[in-house]
Amino acid sequence: MKNEFMEITISTQGFSDMHDLSSHIREFLSRINAKSGLLTVIVPGSTAGITTIEFEPGLRRDFPELMEKLIPRQRYHHDSTWGDGNGFSHLRASLLGPSLSVPVKNGTPVLGTWQQVVLVDFDNRPRARRVVFHYMGE
Amino acid sequence: MKNEFMEITISTQGFSDMHDLSSHIREFLSRINAKSGLLTVIVPGSTAGITTIEFEPGLRRDFPELMEKLIPRQRYHHDSTWGDGNGFSHLRASLLGPSLSVPVKNGTPVLGTWQQVVLVDFDNRPRARRVVFHYMGE
Amino acid sequence: MKNEFMEITISTQGFSDMHDLSSHIREFLSRINAKSGLLTVIVPGSTAGITTIEFEPGLRRDFPELMEKLIPRQRYHHDSTWGDGNGFSHLRASLLGPSLSVPVKNGTPVLGTWQQVVLVDFDNRPRARRVVFHYMGE
Repeated sequence: MKNEFMEITISTQGFSDMHDLSSHIREFLSRINAKSGLLTVIVPGSTAGITTIEFEPGLRRDFPELMEKLIPRQRYHHDSTWGDGNGFSHLRASLLGPSLSVPVKNGTPVLGTWQQVVLVDFDNRPRARRVVFHYMGE
Repeated sequence: MKNEFMEITISTQGFSDMHDLSSHIREFLSRINAKSGLLTVIVPGSTAGITTIEFEPGLRRDFPELMEKLIPRQRYHHDSTWGDGNGFSHLRASLLGPSLSVPVKNGTPVLGTWQQVVLVDFDNRPRARRVVFHYMGE
Repeated sequence: MKNEFMEITISTQGFSDMHDLSSHIREFLSRINAKSGLLTVIVPGSTAGITTIEFEPGLRRDFPELMEKLIPRQRYHHDSTWGDGNGFSHLRASLLGPSLSVPVKNGTPVLGTWQQVVLVDFDNRPRARRVVFHYMGE
């Protein structure tokens, strides 16, 4: 039974900046020779999230605009306590969730052809964002 | 250690069409004689999602109406690029997420009595939708 | 390979009442001597959810206010069928999701320093809420 980790750092711009993690996932699963099991992707930190999306230019504009509509960049109680002005980033991250688990079959994540695992960085400034991949299985 | 998969196809109507997956989950766990472990349910594709809900007629109307309110069926950047007009489907799916993991104890998913795992198809047309169940454990 | 469970009961007030689960997670992982693997936290029931947040007073007000804005406490179809008036609770729970999986490395959940796993109780009354922790790995 494999029980493996891989960690990467991605330079992000914030404000719902999206990053396709597919190539990193392929590299990880290939390196550990994964066959069947469960992949979990997590972003440590409370101002980013993980989901899947068809990673194309239209949706890369639509998703940030949706976030701005649902959880606008405005003053929240968090911002009255802390000076960093990123209350909206925290709320967006809590709503989306920090991790995603995807079964792996025949060495390939069980996903659609036009469905990519993405990191969404909701913070209000550039970050060096750590993403951790975990695999358990054969 | 078991490491098992089951795959089904469900005919869906789209527009936040909800399908109770409970009987499929029971069948899967029973067939593989699952005792304790982790069940993951995933829908491959970027216009559907998995969550839990009390699967009753009221909420089956409420949840689609909520989606229509939060992410209305309107023109998105995705729709300007691609002719399929389902930008809203993609956004709803990314917000809800494509997978759900549920611990299994004594052969039963750790869920409430009135809590069902559901597939929600957000697309704008009927589909034959693949759903994959993965189990790892004893 | 460990395959362990822990169950606790938390007294909740409802209306997006948030509870930090960090100390319970530390206790669980320490008791079973967890090293590397996958932790899954789930709340059985269809009116509560699990996510992560920076658990500080500002966001503990912001997140409930966000839920009230996105999914207001009003009359839903669910409430016309059932007399319990908690349609909004169900919808909030389905949107957030009932479970969260977090990889564990060197005995510690892969999370940020200011990122806590929280139970959010969306119901409209006090509850004795069961939370289940599952761990699989070394």
